[in-house]
Amino acid sequence: VQDLIWSPTEKKVARRAFDLALQKELNSVISDVKRRAAKIERPEDLWKLESYLSECRKEIDGKYDYRYSVLPMVFARLLRDGHLTEEELRGLGDEKLRWIRGIAAL
Amino acid sequence: VQDLIWSPTEKKVARRAFDLALQKELNSVISDVKRRAAKIERPEDLWKLESYLSECRKEIDGKYDYRYSVLPMVFARLLRDGHLTEEELRGLGDEKLRWIRGIAAL
Repeated sequence: VQDLIWSPTEKKVARRAFDLALQKELNSVISDVKRRAAKIERPEDLWKLESYLSECRKEIDGKYDYRYSVLPMVFARLLRDGHLTEEELRGLGDEKLRWIRGIAAL
Repeated sequence: VQDLIWSPTEKKVARRAFDLALQKELNSVISDVKRRAAKIERPEDLWKLESYLSECRKEIDGKYDYRYSVLPMVFARLLRDGHLTEEELRGLGDEKLRWIRGIAAL
């Protein structure tokens, strides 16, 4: 997987899919935070929001790694978790799509 | 300061003043967080809110230390920063109030 060659077109498709998934996930965290903040009543709710935010940041930082050597794993995970569809990966070569589907199915 | 003796009445006054200041400060953080969350538009705003929350938590945890050996320092700081008034410390002995004013003025 690490040695797959990415054509310029594939790089464009990958970048777009990656950014799209990241943006969708960030938007969902933003909505969650607004909803949770509006409901804060007690100090515990404040510190729960803090933990939620730092977990989100760690998870997103860890998951969204745009190095070509790990990108198939990244896409596989996003596909498996419903953050990307196969449609959004259209334009990647068959070998890459096979890898991505294979890893996603593990 | 560490060896001051606290009478039962003084302990009551201290506890009330301490809890009052803490509650006021927490309420102000809660309002801030609600206001900031409502204005989040971009991912950067999310992570700024996260930093703000962890700084608040650290500051509050560090500042509100209810050990009698450090309480005059705690009250001095709260007085200096406007989180407590002298009125709210009424009932503490003159020696303690002198210490608290003295440290607050440093």
